[in-house]
Amino acid sequence: MTEALFEFLLRQGDNSLVLGHRVSEWCGVAPALEEDIALANTALDLIGQTRLWLEYAAEVEGKGRSADDLAFLRDAYDFRNMLLVELPNKDFGQTLMRQFLFDAFQVPWLTALKSSSDQHIADIASKSLQEALYHLERSRDTVIALGDGTKESNARMQEALDRLWPYAGEVFRDDEIDIAMAKKHIAPRPSEIRQTWDATLKETFEAAYLTLSEDRFAHSGGRTGQRHTEHLGHMLATMQVLQRSYPGATW
Amino acid sequence: MTEALFEFLLRQGDNSLVLGHRVSEWCGVAPALEEDIALANTALDLIGQTRLWLEYAAEVEGKGRSADDLAFLRDAYDFRNMLLVELPNKDFGQTLMRQFLFDAFQVPWLTALKSSSDQHIADIASKSLQEALYHLERSRDTVIALGDGTKESNARMQEALDRLWPYAGEVFRDDEIDIAMAKKHIAPRPSEIRQTWDATLKETFEAAYLTLSEDRFAHSGGRTGQRHTEHLGHMLATMQVLQRSYPGATW
Repeated sequence: MTEALFEFLLRQGDNSLVLGHRVSEWCGVAPALEEDIALANTALDLIGQTRLWLEYAAEVEGKGRSADDLAFLRDAYDFRNMLLVELPNKDFGQTLMRQFLFDAFQVPWLTALKSSSDQHIADIASKSLQEALYHLERSRDTVIALGDGTKESNARMQEALDRLWPYAGEVFRDDEIDIAMAKKHIAPRPSEIRQTWDATLKETFEAAYLTLSEDRFAHSGGRTGQRHTEHLGHMLATMQVLQRSYPGATW
Repeated sequence: MTEALFEFLLRQGDNSLVLGHRVSEWCGVAPALEEDIALANTALDLIGQTRLWLEYAAEVEGKGRSADDLAFLRDAYDFRNMLLVELPNKDFGQTLMRQFLFDAFQVPWLTALKSSSDQHIADIASKSLQEALYHLERSRDTVIALGDGTKESNARMQEALDRLWPYAGEVFRDDEIDIAMAKKHIAPRPSEIRQTWDATLKETFEAAYLTLSEDRFAHSGGRTGQRHTEHLGHMLATMQVLQRSYPGATW
């Protein structure tokens, strides 16, 4: 049970860590100053959430590893994030589309986790939800503004959706970890969240004049660590370079 | 003197190491199978030359570091390559244009080094020159084929030349290391090579219908290590990840 809980916590922490790092790559190069600051703030929120999740994961594991050890000294195959968050940013529209697909899950998911039988998880969810609500408002508004913008921006958002869609459904494929968590009332099965997520997407994409594929195929392997994309390793090489080059370095 | 020789050898080895790694990034993703193999072979040649230069550098330094230590355990500011070779590949045309600018220097440079008063350097130059001659033949032919190709390919090659040109001249800015080497007849001053280089460029770009800027401004700082572009650090993070993550790892 401890092992399943540890895996569960890694999934939460790795999602926010990997997405947080991806979003941070925009720092200083976003298309407008306001967007630059907004993206940097989103990244900081996600890294802050990561810290809470991975600190608890480290405590549950009980092997003396710290949250920093988990973030900076694991290899790609030890990561448990969904594939969606490790994909390269591509352009601004792609980045915000990915953010929307993630946020639209994260809000009902964290809302459900607030009722977790594990008080520590309920507390982290409660704190993170405030940020996720704001992220969703922003990513949803941007997806609509760009989808319902020019012909060019609409086409690019449709392209973003078509590219990301096969990665969006991975999280809903319940596995033995999800079932173990549900049995203990620690978390719902992710598939229970799908209806809410589908509704948010339907309403948003209608307003954005974007067409959602009927295809429910989803790449998988990220949450279980069985198969990550090649992009994660390259991202970790950059993200972990300081701790790898100067082990134990502190401020 | 030993220190100047060490710096000189690092410059040779880091040029081929950094360019070799950049070219290797094409492996498996080049636009045609034959080009893929040709690029991979070029990368292997350059890495092979790196080994010779850095082995000798390590010997001259005499501090017990190996060629591998120099390649995989130095930070960006310890690298002595010219900035040109650390720039991202961009498209195939950009990659071959950079290769041509480098090869057009490398051939007369290595030819001169064959007469080095340092026999070890003369031997490395002699071996490397055979490869450089072949690289130049290939990069020159490709620059001409693409420049004298379609309107689109000509425009992209011109764009490549315009982007890379401000980085091409760094090597000709003789400094105290170059002067020290020239005094000992270890190597000519790089500026002595410029006339040959200019002639190769003139003839090639005329055949390729490309226009060379009159501007002789050149970014600098790579060969001295004073200022590298941000791209080098990212490249090293990927290149060095194995040795940084598993120090001392061997096959």
